[in-house]
Amino acid sequence: MNKEKIIVLDSTLRDGAQAEGISFSVEDKLNILNALDQAGIDIIEAGFPGSNPKDIEFFEKLKDVELENAKICAFGSTRRPNIKAEDDDNLNKIIESGAKIATIFGKSSEFHTEKIIHTTKDENLNMIEDSVRYLTDHGLDVIYDAEHFFDGYKENPDYALQTLKAAQDGGAVSIALCDTNGGSLPSEIEEIITKIQEVITIPLGIHAHNDSGLAVANTLSAVRAGARQVQGTFLGFGERCGNANLSTIIPNLQLKMNFNCVGDEKLKKLTNTSIKLAEIANYSLQGREPFIGKSAFAHKGGMHIDAVLKDPKSFEHVVPDSIGNERRLLMSEVSGRGTIINKINEIDPSIDKTSEETTRLMDKIKELEYEGYQFEGAEGSIMLLIRRELGAYKPFFILEDYKTIGSKVTNNNIIGASAIVKVNVNGKTSINAAEGDGPVNALDIALREALKEFYPNIDEMKLTDFKVRVIDKGATASKVRVLIESSDGEKIWSTVGVSSDIIEASLIALIDSIEYKLLSDMEKQMREYRLIM
Amino acid sequence: MNKEKIIVLDSTLRDGAQAEGISFSVEDKLNILNALDQAGIDIIEAGFPGSNPKDIEFFEKLKDVELENAKICAFGSTRRPNIKAEDDDNLNKIIESGAKIATIFGKSSEFHTEKIIHTTKDENLNMIEDSVRYLTDHGLDVIYDAEHFFDGYKENPDYALQTLKAAQDGGAVSIALCDTNGGSLPSEIEEIITKIQEVITIPLGIHAHNDSGLAVANTLSAVRAGARQVQGTFLGFGERCGNANLSTIIPNLQLKMNFNCVGDEKLKKLTNTSIKLAEIANYSLQGREPFIGKSAFAHKGGMHIDAVLKDPKSFEHVVPDSIGNERRLLMSEVSGRGTIINKINEIDPSIDKTSEETTRLMDKIKELEYEGYQFEGAEGSIMLLIRRELGAYKPFFILEDYKTIGSKVTNNNIIGASAIVKVNVNGKTSINAAEGDGPVNALDIALREALKEFYPNIDEMKLTDFKVRVIDKGATASKVRVLIESSDGEKIWSTVGVSSDIIEASLIALIDSIEYKLLSDMEKQMREYRLIM
Repeated sequence: MNKEKIIVLDSTLRDGAQAEGISFSVEDKLNILNALDQAGIDIIEAGFPGSNPKDIEFFEKLKDVELENAKICAFGSTRRPNIKAEDDDNLNKIIESGAKIATIFGKSSEFHTEKIIHTTKDENLNMIEDSVRYLTDHGLDVIYDAEHFFDGYKENPDYALQTLKAAQDGGAVSIALCDTNGGSLPSEIEEIITKIQEVITIPLGIHAHNDSGLAVANTLSAVRAGARQVQGTFLGFGERCGNANLSTIIPNLQLKMNFNCVGDEKLKKLTNTSIKLAEIANYSLQGREPFIGKSAFAHKGGMHIDAVLKDPKSFEHVVPDSIGNERRLLMSEVSGRGTIINKINEIDPSIDKTSEETTRLMDKIKELEYEGYQFEGAEGSIMLLIRRELGAYKPFFILEDYKTIGSKVTNNNIIGASAIVKVNVNGKTSINAAEGDGPVNALDIALREALKEFYPNIDEMKLTDFKVRVIDKGATASKVRVLIESSDGEKIWSTVGVSSDIIEASLIALIDSIEYKLLSDMEKQMREYRLIM
Repeated sequence: MNKEKIIVLDSTLRDGAQAEGISFSVEDKLNILNALDQAGIDIIEAGFPGSNPKDIEFFEKLKDVELENAKICAFGSTRRPNIKAEDDDNLNKIIESGAKIATIFGKSSEFHTEKIIHTTKDENLNMIEDSVRYLTDHGLDVIYDAEHFFDGYKENPDYALQTLKAAQDGGAVSIALCDTNGGSLPSEIEEIITKIQEVITIPLGIHAHNDSGLAVANTLSAVRAGARQVQGTFLGFGERCGNANLSTIIPNLQLKMNFNCVGDEKLKKLTNTSIKLAEIANYSLQGREPFIGKSAFAHKGGMHIDAVLKDPKSFEHVVPDSIGNERRLLMSEVSGRGTIINKINEIDPSIDKTSEETTRLMDKIKELEYEGYQFEGAEGSIMLLIRRELGAYKPFFILEDYKTIGSKVTNNNIIGASAIVKVNVNGKTSINAAEGDGPVNALDIALREALKEFYPNIDEMKLTDFKVRVIDKGATASKVRVLIESSDGEKIWSTVGVSSDIIEASLIALIDSIEYKLLSDMEKQMREYRLIM
């Protein structure tokens, strides 16, 4: 491979943890570390040992962890004003952390130097140079993060450049230019980076934030201008509007700008890695996320579906398989039977557009859509529906009956819901009961418990999203559509249920979700035994 | 204001409706239209009358709608090959729609012309010129959408340019250059637009999609290069990865690039408009959304909070108030109380910003918001909350307790839900039971029945909308927020409830809704007797 290499640094465990609503356990962190390593990330910023005792612990744990591709780096700041570098706890903790790479940040802006950390411009230059040299002398490779660099440069370009020179003189292996507030435009980034390379000769990196919705574009601009290291977080986690999203940057650099980040093979893991990380972080991936989202290659309008069937490049900017994603032709009132026939053919290749089965299935879908179903985005349910209509299906279980009881005694403020379910698996029945937060939750728990004795792999799956939409607007007796998204850590699937009773609608979607999991596990096993291809 | 104007075209109702999971009722569409109009959007693309009978109906309705700022436009395609423009249904439906502006799309790419719509390059040029001229001759302003323009230009620049010339010659008022597949880079966009202006002299627009995560950057690049119309959707809805997000583009253009889109006053509505649109579309706005997201100006780390307190510009790229958003310090919440004071003064004019009651109320609201409440659009609940906190309230009834029972016996296919409620009105209790479609409906019926003997006017009210949103995404035990809209034929009011139990959340909103009705009827009566003003 002759493409020029771009080094990728992921900060999910450090800057990502600054996001509102994100917090990782030690186990989460280890899982994220492994997922990033497998995805081909070069450098993983694992924490800030100087600011956080939990991070010190984590670095202790890391001493026993072997990674395949990635190197670990520890984050910290330059020494405090008016002390020696060797007296700075923060820097010493980086050395003790055992990391071979350190990223330390310092001030590049006159305003921040004088008004925020209250020191002199000269002392700030000393702080940068001393700190870099101290860590370098202790055998670390030091990446210098020039905080607020672009804002600082716009204020006072000379001073901002002097701060970078201080890091270069101190022995930094590279300098990451930070758009800390996320306020810069791509044209500014490109212009400034082009200019400073007349003075700064060590490799440059870029660290962008997404406050203007431009973190990806700013990162690509920086690379165009000469930066060869990109910093970000795999799913864009980070404070405020997040950091530059590596799951968007990596494929842009590799598929469109002819650079190499993780190689072609590992790029195919992009979608799966995103799903895994979202799982660990308990984060709901948006369907419309570029490259890796569930809707990223989903086609809805009849005209578009038609065109994509003629030639996928008509409405796809890259080949979905190159990042491990897939094309989806969405069912909707607008799209004809061209879509459905593809799905049917996955099960029975002998059926075509004119077959009697196709007509029957189309009628069934229309009838359900009329009732309020919407199958776009509910691949799980549509697949089961096709199988049922083709007679290529036998349910894994039957929910024979259920009862839910909800009650509240206001004065005592006791709210409770419980559910009883009776399932039948191949003639054997099992009754189970559970309590939960509301009747749907109680039913969910009772149902899984009842099925676990027959299908232990149900334990791997969990609901990742639960959406309720009222279809006929109006009173509480309106019809509702419940869309459930589930994941088993390897894939994500969605199922749908419609009823005037929210519990019933939830149950329909829930049962389909479990059936889908059991069916795909069976198919996977059969492929392993070469019983099917 | 001397800033150069950029025309903003919103396509939420047309391209936005192509998004997976999005479907709008007629009422939703009217609400969206009004919200966009209020937000200062110049042109609203309201539908595709040629492809969709529902859109024809909608344009009929629009003939009676008066807008303050926006103009309506109808979308369609160039005529079919080898017929006359006047014989093309699609074009005639645009004329019949009554819209004064038409956006019609045509092919700019040789590949699409020959391989997808199977016509000749010459006939395609005729289709473009004829169609634009036909609509222009009927008095419409025609915006020509050059579909796949950038891909087409990269394939065959001469032919792509000829298609634009055809539109220009046909009399188009402007040409929107489309990056239909969302695969272009900002640098390409800027270079190509700069070049074509040697030939194309009418104003240019940009229509970008977000497949590479670059729709905002591509739009800004186009404006840098000379485009003066931006197309997108307010929240970025659209097929696959969505359209260019106007809620990000507008503030970038206006606050950073010194153009004028909607004026300074309307820009302050940006955040509120986003919340409104998300509500209508039943879409979960991400906290980290640039400019308008809940986390966009949220500061978490101690160092950052410290700096922001010294000077907000240390970690904020724009002033949050300029787009109607606000700073949140996640450790110690300090937030604007100006908004709530108006509502308080309706009840007690003697209370001001510094009163102890205001502080208490603000704390209470923050606590509830933290629990997942959102009072945007829930005027009924906020009014009751203020009265309760001020002690200016006595409930009309107390729901002492309730029970719900849901059950299904699959073999007999009997689904049923019933509810028992016990209410206390001034010490007198009443028990009632009802059956319904699901437990919430059963409770609703039982509750109204039980109260009717005390408050016969309850019969006048009915629920007109019922929305459920999952707040913590995740399993069925996630918290849900229920928003109820009610009407008694004279007014419409909304109330909100939050709980991990959907029944409980519904009940909280339902009880508030009934209380609000009873309270306003009492006030009305007192005004009639001149007991209050």
